Amino acid sequence: MTAAMRFVSLSILAPAILAAADIDGSWHLALIRFNERFSSARVVLKADSNKLTGTLNELKLAGTIEGNHIRLTMTRPNGSELGVLEGDLDGDRIGGTVKQGTEETRFEGRRAPAAPAKPTTHSFAPTAFHRVFSSAIAPALRIHSGDSVRTTSVDAGGTDASGVRRSLGGNPLTGPFFVEGAMPGDTLKVEFHKVRLNRPSAGSGDRIVPNALTPGYHRNAKYDDKFDSSWKLDLSASTARLAKPTERLKNFQVSLQPMVGCVGVAPPGNQSFRSGHLGPWGGNMDYNGLREGVTVYLPVYHEGALLFVGDGHALQGDGELNGDALETSMDLEFTVTLQPGASTQAPRMENAEYLMASGIANSLPEALQQATSELARWIERDYRLSPNESGIVLGTSIRYDIAEIVPQVQIVAKVRKDVLATIGK
Amino acid sequence: MTAAMRFVSLSILAPAILAAADIDGSWHLALIRFNERFSSARVVLKADSNKLTGTLNELKLAGTIEGNHIRLTMTRPNGSELGVLEGDLDGDRIGGTVKQGTEETRFEGRRAPAAPAKPTTHSFAPTAFHRVFSSAIAPALRIHSGDSVRTTSVDAGGTDASGVRRSLGGNPLTGPFFVEGAMPGDTLKVEFHKVRLNRPSAGSGDRIVPNALTPGYHRNAKYDDKFDSSWKLDLSASTARLAKPTERLKNFQVSLQPMVGCVGVAPPGNQSFRSGHLGPWGGNMDYNGLREGVTVYLPVYHEGALLFVGDGHALQGDGELNGDALETSMDLEFTVTLQPGASTQAPRMENAEYLMASGIANSLPEALQQATSELARWIERDYRLSPNESGIVLGTSIRYDIAEIVPQVQIVAKVRKDVLATIGK
Amino acid sequence: MTAAMRFVSLSILAPAILAAADIDGSWHLALIRFNERFSSARVVLKADSNKLTGTLNELKLAGTIEGNHIRLTMTRPNGSELGVLEGDLDGDRIGGTVKQGTEETRFEGRRAPAAPAKPTTHSFAPTAFHRVFSSAIAPALRIHSGDSVRTTSVDAGGTDASGVRRSLGGNPLTGPFFVEGAMPGDTLKVEFHKVRLNRPSAGSGDRIVPNALTPGYHRNAKYDDKFDSSWKLDLSASTARLAKPTERLKNFQVSLQPMVGCVGVAPPGNQSFRSGHLGPWGGNMDYNGLREGVTVYLPVYHEGALLFVGDGHALQGDGELNGDALETSMDLEFTVTLQPGASTQAPRMENAEYLMASGIANSLPEALQQATSELARWIERDYRLSPNESGIVLGTSIRYDIAEIVPQVQIVAKVRKDVLATIGK
Amino acid sequence: MTAAMRFVSLSILAPAILAAADIDGSWHLALIRFNERFSSARVVLKADSNKLTGTLNELKLAGTIEGNHIRLTMTRPNGSELGVLEGDLDGDRIGGTVKQGTEETRFEGRRAPAAPAKPTTHSFAPTAFHRVFSSAIAPALRIHSGDSVRTTSVDAGGTDASGVRRSLGGNPLTGPFFVEGAMPGDTLKVEFHKVRLNRPSAGSGDRIVPNALTPGYHRNAKYDDKFDSSWKLDLSASTARLAKPTERLKNFQVSLQPMVGCVGVAPPGNQSFRSGHLGPWGGNMDYNGLREGVTVYLPVYHEGALLFVGDGHALQGDGELNGDALETSMDLEFTVTLQPGASTQAPRMENAEYLMASGIANSLPEALQQATSELARWIERDYRLSPNESGIVLGTSIRYDIAEIVPQVQIVAKVRKDVLATIGK
Repeated sequence: MTAAMRFVSLSILAPAILAAADIDGSWHLALIRFNERFSSARVVLKADSNKLTGTLNELKLAGTIEGNHIRLTMTRPNGSELGVLEGDLDGDRIGGTVKQGTEETRFEGRRAPAAPAKPTTHSFAPTAFHRVFSSAIAPALRIHSGDSVRTTSVDAGGTDASGVRRSLGGNPLTGPFFVEGAMPGDTLKVEFHKVRLNRPSAGSGDRIVPNALTPGYHRNAKYDDKFDSSWKLDLSASTARLAKPTERLKNFQVSLQPMVGCVGVAPPGNQSFRSGHLGPWGGNMDYNGLREGVTVYLPVYHEGALLFVGDGHALQGDGELNGDALETSMDLEFTVTLQPGASTQAPRMENAEYLMASGIANSLPEALQQATSELARWIERDYRLSPNESGIVLGTSIRYDIAEIVPQVQIVAKVRKDVLATIGK
Repeated sequence: MTAAMRFVSLSILAPAILAAADIDGSWHLALIRFNERFSSARVVLKADSNKLTGTLNELKLAGTIEGNHIRLTMTRPNGSELGVLEGDLDGDRIGGTVKQGTEETRFEGRRAPAAPAKPTTHSFAPTAFHRVFSSAIAPALRIHSGDSVRTTSVDAGGTDASGVRRSLGGNPLTGPFFVEGAMPGDTLKVEFHKVRLNRPSAGSGDRIVPNALTPGYHRNAKYDDKFDSSWKLDLSASTARLAKPTERLKNFQVSLQPMVGCVGVAPPGNQSFRSGHLGPWGGNMDYNGLREGVTVYLPVYHEGALLFVGDGHALQGDGELNGDALETSMDLEFTVTLQPGASTQAPRMENAEYLMASGIANSLPEALQQATSELARWIERDYRLSPNESGIVLGTSIRYDIAEIVPQVQIVAKVRKDVLATIGK
Repeated sequence: MTAAMRFVSLSILAPAILAAADIDGSWHLALIRFNERFSSARVVLKADSNKLTGTLNELKLAGTIEGNHIRLTMTRPNGSELGVLEGDLDGDRIGGTVKQGTEETRFEGRRAPAAPAKPTTHSFAPTAFHRVFSSAIAPALRIHSGDSVRTTSVDAGGTDASGVRRSLGGNPLTGPFFVEGAMPGDTLKVEFHKVRLNRPSAGSGDRIVPNALTPGYHRNAKYDDKFDSSWKLDLSASTARLAKPTERLKNFQVSLQPMVGCVGVAPPGNQSFRSGHLGPWGGNMDYNGLREGVTVYLPVYHEGALLFVGDGHALQGDGELNGDALETSMDLEFTVTLQPGASTQAPRMENAEYLMASGIANSLPEALQQATSELARWIERDYRLSPNESGIVLGTSIRYDIAEIVPQVQIVAKVRKDVLATIGK
Repeated sequence: MTAAMRFVSLSILAPAILAAADIDGSWHLALIRFNERFSSARVVLKADSNKLTGTLNELKLAGTIEGNHIRLTMTRPNGSELGVLEGDLDGDRIGGTVKQGTEETRFEGRRAPAAPAKPTTHSFAPTAFHRVFSSAIAPALRIHSGDSVRTTSVDAGGTDASGVRRSLGGNPLTGPFFVEGAMPGDTLKVEFHKVRLNRPSAGSGDRIVPNALTPGYHRNAKYDDKFDSSWKLDLSASTARLAKPTERLKNFQVSLQPMVGCVGVAPPGNQSFRSGHLGPWGGNMDYNGLREGVTVYLPVYHEGALLFVGDGHALQGDGELNGDALETSMDLEFTVTLQPGASTQAPRMENAEYLMASGIANSLPEALQQATSELARWIERDYRLSPNESGIVLGTSIRYDIAEIVPQVQIVAKVRKDVLATIGK
């Protein structure tokens, strides 16, 4: 018996008189073809007697409800008809079929979860760590929009604040956090209130990654394979020194600027990317500007979004030039808010001073194009500017940061908020 | 009569007894083959009786002087013999032949000019402007190492501080300044003491250059061809506004940060590059960090170096995103010092806060490689670091600026001097 | 009870006297840490009385067997000691621990499967299709080295030879085929004997992908969204025409050159990549030279390799310029042979005329570097050439094909076998 | 006395009655501002009594002739008025002023040269060679459209067919050939009838250029600095072998495929580029498909075009992987035809089999975009195709050659003529 048949048989028994009142509101559908749950959609419905109207993502719906049976015509934003959605209600569940021409897609769904009256702050102590960004990983914690999470991350090699190895290496991630109500096409807003160091040690590479150097440099450089690049962190002074420095670096000291290396959601479809990857879903962004006080906006591709965090850096130069940074464990606190339907093409960020658009791509030229275009679209939309006007604003005021160069590239394009403030929204 | 014959005949008349004393010091040779003066070289000689020793660029010379005739064996830095230099003196002139195997190169030269006792500050009012960087352009002013120049530049379109059009457009350049004693392989140090605006107007583009945008942005952007992007500069408040703003930009205001767009020497050989070009010789660098207080180091390719300056910008975002900036005329003052034999592969810069290495190349990835490698080599040399040690310093502390993206690319790699100060030289 | 405990307890019951004889041969181990089976290894052992020697991948093993208990010291190729492997036999199973310093890795394994006396040709009719390359997918068929497979593939949209939609779109793949005995570090050799069209229709895109065009082309091109780019294939004449051509293309005809778009193994670790992806593991290579008669060499990352094929093209220009090609279903036949320990860094290919090395990377410059370097290394190894000698051979004789430009890039570097034949192996 | 004054004074003496008849036809103007002859233009005039009409490049002209004085309003292709051209005739000379708003441009010109009745074949033995592409070099030979030239080129190091060194190295060029009547905006068609070897020796590099190799290859490759890569050419057998081969390459033999490395015109403005450079003006294209039988189309930027040829290669792999090829001297024969007003953006080529569009740019991605876009535009124009239609043709049938990768990049996009023939013009 297929799910569709079950719904049909159950609906015979349901009292039709209650349906109209019950159907109003938001529903989450899973879309199914060839036995694959390939996508999800948010449906919002409103009944007026047996007339039914609503939306399915960006589509408009209009039709009827007869008992528990609904039948809705789907219309594109441009007004053209797309097909018909037909289904049956069973309390908080719904099931049926979408027909477009000769193609049929099954759906199964349930009423969207109600948000609690007030947000919660969750203290989450991770017990397992994940080395891929993937929707295949079961949620570690379910939270609601507006909730905050206090948690910790292990370092890139899997060692925690106490020096205990907790995972294989390669940026083991804390999470994933399932955000109730998040659906594909939404945006997740993650405000980092605390990005704090929690131990006096870090490790780093000691060579510049090959693709940041010329062939000539490669041919001449003589490396010492036994160089010790472990670091001592002085958390009170906020400085770092090599734990066992060479003679020339015995006084070398740098100031700490703690940052989060990995922030990302489950990538689209059934893809799994190593936690060293980055993409439009975020991931191993390794941006040294992603510090305490920064808000990150991420696109949602799966129900619940599935947010992962990890890979704390005590300090990192631009481009993550050693392939890593001062890798260490972290205490993190962040608030997650859902922005329904406010899709972003790629990670965006914001702090007190700047709007920042990430361009994440395969190469520096493409990353620069994406970052610039995304920042231009952002201010065109929020400040109602034409392309000439955004050209004037960014031509005078854009700043680029080269955030990451391996294995994908991230360039951040940013513009000062005080410059934008002279325009007014 | 060839030059060589002239030297030979004249030398017969010269009193041999004076030669030994006269030859000591520095000589500048032009090297000639197939009627082409293809390079220059600095020769330093010292006579001890009829024994003669010295250098020709990086080569060692050893031989004899007999009357006015000199004969010197040339030895490479690795000790291998390269060939023989033979010539004749005629007062402050010298001529002869270099033989390497079967190849013969003629040379003609003269005693290097003596530096004056104290530096001069030249006030130079340009009367002609040049739209190429080229060794084919006659010097506008001859200066000595240590001298300063006070001058002005017209804007990128050729208009001066009074609003008078003085040249065709395309970054017309002031200069070239011939630096007495500068020879290929030297480095020119140019300290910008004044980079000052001198008129209340500027012009700019109003579109982002195509290669900074995605195809998707291109396909959707509707541009207004009549957008007016002339600017009013308020020099006392150090701000700019559009002269005829659109409704949305009527209050848009930016703070000025005057910078020099073009600083460069004559490029190698008989090449001429438009003043919109950039390369290892500098040129249209368009780096918004090249402001008052910055020192620029440039490689020398020709006798006299031939320094050009121009293309003032009242303000520019990163990457010169409009293909131009707030283009305006400028008052400039700079001191030029020669660093003999201290070759740099590409422009380097320095200000109170940073060491900065330019990577100028055909693409962003290559520019990043060059900038990183050059900065690494710089600190390895000046701070006596190994590649692992420079990796540690730059991995934690490098910053990149994307200076220019069209028509060539410039990325500036920089590191704070206070970080380097913890190492000590 | 952990697996290790089980082995220990069972081994108590096993007759120790048989162990020495039994242990000789090849074993496959799964390596486990933090509950993750993160890798596999091939162990080859030989007992001489209670002395035991062997290899673990590239490591040398030497130690003892006492009853069912083995203890082996692991030595690197350079002779340095790496750690100790200790375990217990239980018939065809083995379990135990590898200790390196303070780190401990669990292993569980079994005796490597014996190859059958003669190869089999399997006729495999796929019932499910997969839209990711992933080790998470259960084998569809288990084969041995030397076996051949006759099978079919659906088109990129999921439609088969009969015109029946069998899967969601996006290059649904046939397989995966589990190759008995294949272990990480091996190379899989796949000889395509048949790459045949099996239906008279195909579909394609009708626009050049954005990243193959200049911004200027984008701004001017007016596309017709209703262009019909379905194709009629004439299999006997081996030609194609548009099914519903425009007036200008009503006689436009092309000759068919059937090729396989997707050939790949499960990528490393627990990554899953869409079947539109390509990488060192092969994947959506979309190389129009991958036709009948070509042999593909792929690296193995997982036990069994897990080979996927699909995405047949009736014809494709270089670079898969429409983002797709003449997409159609296919009849395929290929022989799979295992080359133990003969690791390749990326796909290599061979046909009657050429050796071909794939460079698969994020950008054209990197793909060219990888393809060139891999071809150079290949001929240096197989023809015992120095870098100068490979430089001479490739400088005169290399040819590049731009195979694919989206979403990753593949450049194929190739050299004629008749040129190499003048050298001799 | 300025040139303008001279014209005015002379015109007083000229019999006005003859002017109407005399002015008809084509005139070549030099345009002058700020003492710089910055461009040239072709003016075509036709008088009807004292009414005068015509064109200036793409502009329309309409006005009057009074005696020797002409006054013409200039109109853009879109119908908007651009300004006024006013001048005076003096026999075959003309002079005057173009006024656009407040801007004034001087012009001086002369009647375009008449083409001879039949073409000439010039035998040109070069006595000087040039190491830059530049309009600053005086013409070596003046030819007319339709004429052919038989000449020779020295090898990249300057050595001729007899083994005599004739020039410094770096691709010394034969020419420039001044093509009478060629004006900016025209296209030069150069048909290579003979590309023949003329001596039994060649030289090449023996290493792959750094930017074609991965960092890993660089770090491991041990080069022999004393490798001898001189070649013996067997012109009758059309093969080459190393002159002093290593043991492994003692039988290595390759087949010759003579090609022309340098074909180019003087680049725009007063730029001079080394003869190792390439650009839209052609130059050091180093395309191994540029063989006997190929026709090259080049844009014209200067009066007379100034065509240069040189840098013969006996054989070269794709990408000129050694930075050079089998460098040798050549016998060349080619016919030059002028295509007035048929501007091409970059070099195009044609042989019996293919149409070929060059993309010459700073990087492989940009070169691919330019080559693809240029080929698409070419077939769209010549075969009257829409972008969807050119997408269909190129998606199935495009082939790319990677011609050159240093110092700029050339990719050639090509399509078979027999495929295009099924469309019909």
